[in-house]
Amino acid sequence: MRRRLIITLALLLLAPMGLAQPAVETAATGLNHPWALTFLPDGDVLVTERPGRLLRLDPATGERRVITGTPEVDARNQGGLLDIELHPDFADHRWVYLTWAGACERGNATHLGRGRLNGDRLLDFETLFIATPCVQSTKHFGSRIVFDRDGDLFMTVGDRGERDRAQDLGDHNGSVLRLNDDGSIPADNPFVDRDDALPAIYSYGHRNPQGAAIHPQTGALWIHEHGPRGGDEINLPVAGGNFGWPETTYGREYWGPEIGPDSMPGTVAPIYHWTPSIAPSGMAFYTGDVIPGWQGDLFVGALAKVHLAHLELDGPRVEKETQRLTERSRRIRAIEVGPDGALYILTDHANGELLRLQ
Amino acid sequence: MRRRLIITLALLLLAPMGLAQPAVETAATGLNHPWALTFLPDGDVLVTERPGRLLRLDPATGERRVITGTPEVDARNQGGLLDIELHPDFADHRWVYLTWAGACERGNATHLGRGRLNGDRLLDFETLFIATPCVQSTKHFGSRIVFDRDGDLFMTVGDRGERDRAQDLGDHNGSVLRLNDDGSIPADNPFVDRDDALPAIYSYGHRNPQGAAIHPQTGALWIHEHGPRGGDEINLPVAGGNFGWPETTYGREYWGPEIGPDSMPGTVAPIYHWTPSIAPSGMAFYTGDVIPGWQGDLFVGALAKVHLAHLELDGPRVEKETQRLTERSRRIRAIEVGPDGALYILTDHANGELLRLQ
Repeated sequence: MRRRLIITLALLLLAPMGLAQPAVETAATGLNHPWALTFLPDGDVLVTERPGRLLRLDPATGERRVITGTPEVDARNQGGLLDIELHPDFADHRWVYLTWAGACERGNATHLGRGRLNGDRLLDFETLFIATPCVQSTKHFGSRIVFDRDGDLFMTVGDRGERDRAQDLGDHNGSVLRLNDDGSIPADNPFVDRDDALPAIYSYGHRNPQGAAIHPQTGALWIHEHGPRGGDEINLPVAGGNFGWPETTYGREYWGPEIGPDSMPGTVAPIYHWTPSIAPSGMAFYTGDVIPGWQGDLFVGALAKVHLAHLELDGPRVEKETQRLTERSRRIRAIEVGPDGALYILTDHANGELLRLQ
Repeated sequence: MRRRLIITLALLLLAPMGLAQPAVETAATGLNHPWALTFLPDGDVLVTERPGRLLRLDPATGERRVITGTPEVDARNQGGLLDIELHPDFADHRWVYLTWAGACERGNATHLGRGRLNGDRLLDFETLFIATPCVQSTKHFGSRIVFDRDGDLFMTVGDRGERDRAQDLGDHNGSVLRLNDDGSIPADNPFVDRDDALPAIYSYGHRNPQGAAIHPQTGALWIHEHGPRGGDEINLPVAGGNFGWPETTYGREYWGPEIGPDSMPGTVAPIYHWTPSIAPSGMAFYTGDVIPGWQGDLFVGALAKVHLAHLELDGPRVEKETQRLTERSRRIRAIEVGPDGALYILTDHANGELLRLQ
């Protein structure tokens, strides 16, 4: 009796501190390897499926319709239809941005394009940017896109599995790119005046970044990237910064030996790393108000390690990590905060789900 | 006989490889703690003396005249009249830029200003920027200035001996600033959209940078900075980058204990460091043609260690360091390449010299 009283009191004390667990609901199932999601102003959610379909889904009922007018994709291995984002002024012109693995001369490349959403169609879809050169590879496309507060579009591009591309400023792969909303190059990009560098490159030395988000207070870009065996990193890209891959990494070759030292002269160190790897994908700062204890915290999905990484921050430092949804054992691919303040999650399976935490 | 032949042959082989020592001449003496120099189109050199005088000097004869119209300086300890630079379009409007330690409300601060050179006078001298807040300190003014190829003005500011200022984005001290040529703030500076940061700041976490130069091939800014006991660094500032002082450093407290780890999450690592310290001041890439073996090499003056550090580079890596002018035991404060292709050096003494290497 006394014991129960103590437990009850403890729960009452802990609840306002945010230690109570939010409820997890399944908003939709039957998604075919969903890769990304974004909410429309009317509360519907757009979901990309990696094999190439774009869906418009009602998260209250799970009902969905296919959106037509999307680009042709190269859906082998890690490739396909990838990220999705609305233009910051979507209400004015209804531009939806997509990234995908697309065929190009003798290979494929990470592509960026946009079309106007009209009912269940994307109209006037156009390719805005191709991360050249084309490569014969079906992996490490990167491809998260995010608009910052100034309306600049950041796009992550993986090293395509050919690591030396990440240090090559004449190669878009293994970089974070910064573009205008029409795919042109901002005049103040860090390498615009250099003859030996591509002007779209904002930062380089990245392996395969599959998470990107704008910090809600500072407006800074945060990304994460897959390491090899160990050395998954969270990085804060700075203009012209070298993030070190493959010359420095906490990770190792899959077959054992060291790849490089933990740190290297002239490179920007990650703010956090996972060793061994979790295989991160998707990234969101929780800005809703239905889970008060989580406000301002960072959430990262884990594919290989099948959980939701919950990171409590102090400025640019990770103070504490908690693994959530471990009991579900799902590969988590994408995370967004919904207009209802809940945290939405896509699981990367042939029968993938949209989960709602609130 | 045979031995002499071998030595002669060896010298003949080595000379074209640049291993021959250039001659050192004394172009001028009697300079009172000279701090900086810059060449005028007519071949004269402008030299600042830290106590407050600006001289116009003929390097062929050593003759000099005092330039009037310079600002009032606070010449205690490390303070006084400091750096000098010509506007990239000096021929059009004859603007000469100066930095100095100047008094301000309850203390002093690193100041930037400019005037038009007319004969032996600076006309219309105006203060363009004050690195606030004012501090009661007579050290770590930083204060090197350099224009990059786009005409942006970079200005280094030391931490004023109060190390926590270097991590404070609300404080100009301990930073590299980026300004327009009239002292206003470029719209594309990295922190212009942040409420908690001063918009002039380009990079931060610097201790006391007294060397800055633009790389002749890449156009990138290179700086160096004094460490505490050890940990003098060469850094390549990137927009928004945190260079770590005082949270990470190779240096130690003067009384022994460690200050921080060698590297830190989220910070940019130096490309080179001197531990123990040499106390670096002045920095120039050798771009002349009278010492062919030195072309593209970097030169840094050493105050405490009284030599010229000659650094051979491979991209952003220091491949080899050679200590030169060691036999002279002079505190080297500033280095510039002259229009004649010689390397000019100021020594920081009450009877300071202008040396010419060719």
